[in-house]
Amino acid sequence: MNQRDADHLDSEDPLGSLRDKFRIPPGLIYLCGNSLGPMPLGAAGRAREVVEREWAEDLIRSWNVHDWFGLPERVGARIARLIGVRPHEVIVADSTSINLFKVVNAALHTRPGRHTILSERGNFPTNAYVLQGIARGSAGATQARAVERAEIPGAIDEDTAVVVLTHVHYRDAAAFDIAAVTRAAHAAGALIVWDLSHSVGAMPVDLAAAGADFAVGCTYKYLNGGPGAPALIFAAERHQAELDPGLCGWWGHQSPFDLVEDYQPAPGMRRMLTGTPSILALATLDAALDVFDGIDLADVRAKSTRLTSAFIGLAQARLAAFGVTVATPLDPLRRGAHVALRHPEAYAIMQALIARQVVGDFRVPDVMRFGLAPLYTRYRDVWDTVEILADVLVSEEWRKPEFARRGRVT
Amino acid sequence: MNQRDADHLDSEDPLGSLRDKFRIPPGLIYLCGNSLGPMPLGAAGRAREVVEREWAEDLIRSWNVHDWFGLPERVGARIARLIGVRPHEVIVADSTSINLFKVVNAALHTRPGRHTILSERGNFPTNAYVLQGIARGSAGATQARAVERAEIPGAIDEDTAVVVLTHVHYRDAAAFDIAAVTRAAHAAGALIVWDLSHSVGAMPVDLAAAGADFAVGCTYKYLNGGPGAPALIFAAERHQAELDPGLCGWWGHQSPFDLVEDYQPAPGMRRMLTGTPSILALATLDAALDVFDGIDLADVRAKSTRLTSAFIGLAQARLAAFGVTVATPLDPLRRGAHVALRHPEAYAIMQALIARQVVGDFRVPDVMRFGLAPLYTRYRDVWDTVEILADVLVSEEWRKPEFARRGRVT
Repeated sequence: MNQRDADHLDSEDPLGSLRDKFRIPPGLIYLCGNSLGPMPLGAAGRAREVVEREWAEDLIRSWNVHDWFGLPERVGARIARLIGVRPHEVIVADSTSINLFKVVNAALHTRPGRHTILSERGNFPTNAYVLQGIARGSAGATQARAVERAEIPGAIDEDTAVVVLTHVHYRDAAAFDIAAVTRAAHAAGALIVWDLSHSVGAMPVDLAAAGADFAVGCTYKYLNGGPGAPALIFAAERHQAELDPGLCGWWGHQSPFDLVEDYQPAPGMRRMLTGTPSILALATLDAALDVFDGIDLADVRAKSTRLTSAFIGLAQARLAAFGVTVATPLDPLRRGAHVALRHPEAYAIMQALIARQVVGDFRVPDVMRFGLAPLYTRYRDVWDTVEILADVLVSEEWRKPEFARRGRVT
Repeated sequence: MNQRDADHLDSEDPLGSLRDKFRIPPGLIYLCGNSLGPMPLGAAGRAREVVEREWAEDLIRSWNVHDWFGLPERVGARIARLIGVRPHEVIVADSTSINLFKVVNAALHTRPGRHTILSERGNFPTNAYVLQGIARGSAGATQARAVERAEIPGAIDEDTAVVVLTHVHYRDAAAFDIAAVTRAAHAAGALIVWDLSHSVGAMPVDLAAAGADFAVGCTYKYLNGGPGAPALIFAAERHQAELDPGLCGWWGHQSPFDLVEDYQPAPGMRRMLTGTPSILALATLDAALDVFDGIDLADVRAKSTRLTSAFIGLAQARLAAFGVTVATPLDPLRRGAHVALRHPEAYAIMQALIARQVVGDFRVPDVMRFGLAPLYTRYRDVWDTVEILADVLVSEEWRKPEFARRGRVT
């Protein structure tokens, strides 16, 4: 792909007009939507409305008048299509970490006699911390075991209660074959939880076809729900009647306003709720999802693989001489929507790039990540990014002292 | 108190000008701030700023540039003064239910060999559900026991790991003597968790003087943080080094961006965090707390007891003839900032009252609750409310079919 090809691809992009639904600062090439998606224009109006009209004017009556109560289910139902499941199988609440805690507890509860939670070594660490916390709290009844990716199929055995994996890896974008791994887990009698944080909204996910049991996922990355937007939970209908998340509050009760003493779980996904969720956050996410209305996820995936292929091709052709390598799988079927490049000076190079208005991010120890969110990223952005990156490397401007690593890294 | 007294008290109220810092719809008497506080004017601007400038324009850089990372601690530190503890002993995250789960787990962890969580029967049910969930998940190691209020001191024994109580009762506003009950718990070697949901912001709470161990509390009631605003957690400094909330994510890690495999808790309160919190919700709460700047909580309490005393006096004098009784303790030292009235037709009467623009709420089976939040409630509101309530009872307009109970009740 050259610059003219890029412009031509943009002019023929069936998703090209979606970019106008986002507020992306002029002059900025924003390739960090896999960490925090940009603001859909409709989100700002909805946030104002919920604060300045619903909260300020309708006050407590809004729970009924604006059905704040139903928001977790309504927003969940809108996400269901994006992950290939039915509307009543998804609900939105709390954070991905907390939701993972709930679904893993629920899974353990339905697999008594099995003692192992199996996950991937090197997965995004919050998942490891959640699982280790569950194991510590179990007084020896449950162990959290993490193995290398290649060892996972062989490590699922008759002691495995639940397998917890992230569909697309946060660092290198390597994607699991959800159907194949789900089959392997089920063949051994284990359940499976998929973390969709780095895939939902960027590519089709078909959990129902794969027969997946549970999923969690982030909504502030490719779903553009706003910083810290509440997370999704999926549980297949066949499991719902048995779910005990362990972490139970009044929002998950079958009749919260009867204020009865004993916990009786709500039917369906609602029992995965705990306390009152942030209505500002939920309503803003709800509005952000409007950009997905009517979109065919096959188009999204087609554009996404073209974007990542173009980026990888350009990086290989123009950056290899500077010691930059591609960490992301070269097979489009085996990767998600971001591209990871490796360089020993990745931190400084990324800072220099950001100073040039190209925003990706750094991940320890040596990775530059570029999120090519297909809803608003242009082919021209890919071309320009590699152009600027090449210039940063040629000029060695990344060696400037202000780009040296210090302190917290996001 | 008569109408002229009420107006006089308002004209001399040292807190009277605070009402102008809230948006309260004209003509509405809003006595439901103990359920959802009204919008402080500064909250709207802050919500806009965080969405339309920080998220929309500064995007991912906001984590550092606007120190979104530090929000849970910064907001916690502002609440610390209101509950009599030090800034580094409070943090804000997640919901009250989830925070209760975390502190109770942490408390159990520091009291090995003790197996009972003791709480009050008839407390707000989410607390009971959280404790029952912990007990179910413990495989018999922990039991959740709830007893009547009068039996609590005698029920704390050498098997009690932790006592979980709500400072001010959600229904009748009866207040515990925090210092006395904390002493009783400690005398038996137990720890104590105070739920401050119905007291923080409405009256001074002095947890440090009482030697309390842990607390949680709601921020969308008297702290006016907005619907579903994230909740507070307090842990006394002496416990912080040992805290294991069980529910652990990357936000509670000592070095989240090193992305290491093994959980190492952050020092201090930060380990009580789990996943990414809603920045919209946290920032809005932060701005809402501005109304407390420079306020003396002794003034707040003095006004509050005068408001509740006036309300109770008027209710006794004018409503008893209609079968209305006062459920709230008559001793001001033993109650919080709301007043509960009982009547067999409480639901319909409250609906009729709401139709007359006086907003309180109903709690099963027969309670009308009136939150007299001292920051913005006027003595004249108290007078007018009892006046209108008397009229609703005299006229029997509550018998209209549209006020009959049906469906969900908030």
